[in-house]
Amino acid sequence: MTVEKARAIARSTLSDGRFYHTECVAKCARALAYRTGADPDQTEIAAFLHDIMKEQSDAVLLKTMQGSAIMQDNYLSEYRALWHAFAGASYVRNELGVSQEIADAVFYHTSGHAAMTPMEKSVFLADYISEDRVFEGAAEVRKIAETDIDLAVAAALKNMIRHLAEQGKVIQPMSLEAYNYYIYRMKD
Amino acid sequence: MTVEKARAIARSTLSDGRFYHTECVAKCARALAYRTGADPDQTEIAAFLHDIMKEQSDAVLLKTMQGSAIMQDNYLSEYRALWHAFAGASYVRNELGVSQEIADAVFYHTSGHAAMTPMEKSVFLADYISEDRVFEGAAEVRKIAETDIDLAVAAALKNMIRHLAEQGKVIQPMSLEAYNYYIYRMKD
Repeated sequence: MTVEKARAIARSTLSDGRFYHTECVAKCARALAYRTGADPDQTEIAAFLHDIMKEQSDAVLLKTMQGSAIMQDNYLSEYRALWHAFAGASYVRNELGVSQEIADAVFYHTSGHAAMTPMEKSVFLADYISEDRVFEGAAEVRKIAETDIDLAVAAALKNMIRHLAEQGKVIQPMSLEAYNYYIYRMKD
Repeated sequence: MTVEKARAIARSTLSDGRFYHTECVAKCARALAYRTGADPDQTEIAAFLHDIMKEQSDAVLLKTMQGSAIMQDNYLSEYRALWHAFAGASYVRNELGVSQEIADAVFYHTSGHAAMTPMEKSVFLADYISEDRVFEGAAEVRKIAETDIDLAVAAALKNMIRHLAEQGKVIQPMSLEAYNYYIYRMKD
């Protein structure tokens, strides 16, 4: 897989709006990779593929996730917003043959998890602060990311947990683990 | 252990203010026990003992917790607010010789956990909605508890998770498990 190939797959799979977001994330993730120590090309590939399943139906997502350990999660039905990441990881690994490292960056790009790899962290954060993001909190996290990437990850996760709790939505334990991990590091 | 004995221990151990809170929780927990199906006397004993270690020093709490599995928690230092519950459980079980059921109700009274027993739920909720509680959210949860105890537990946990995330504090995974469990049940 090359960056150009990943870009072409995203372009031919996604709507214009989603592809624009994907391009913004790819650009941002590549820039973050230079700072986190991740491989810039591999990170950009992961970023181009991160939302590859975002516009698929529930049925397609569930079918693509079959065989993944995440299917054993008791609350999977409550994490609809994460399905595209879980299914995306299976898809890019099994159908596109990318590395496990890239598949993991796709898998965790929405939930996060504790002790993310440099690539996972770059894609996770890029998806939150890419230039097209205008939701509440994005500007604040973008500002923090200028000086401290882990602090920005902590701030993004804090916003996520707060937002989910405000809405009374079930929270994936790996997001909580990620939150605890990065919040705790902030205090060092 | 009798209710009168537990009350006397609380009275001789706690400050006036803390004992007043404890009496309010005992009264409320007993009332809730009739609705959750917990034993009213045993629940009232647990309630009288729930904050028995609340006014002890960090050193005493840590010493009392020695031997408890909770000492293995990587983030224990971040859960200072839970120490009195963990140490309280060890104290009432090992020093006062109460049942494991009562010790568990003390252990989980602040954090909560998934699938609480009727007694645990009664003490947890009573500690949140007892008549002396005036913090934000207590009145709302008290109102919900008039008609649905599990819904009130979910609302209390929702407030707790939101509050901790707003403050950027580490969240104990069993509180997250409790939140997910009761929020999910609300949707049934």
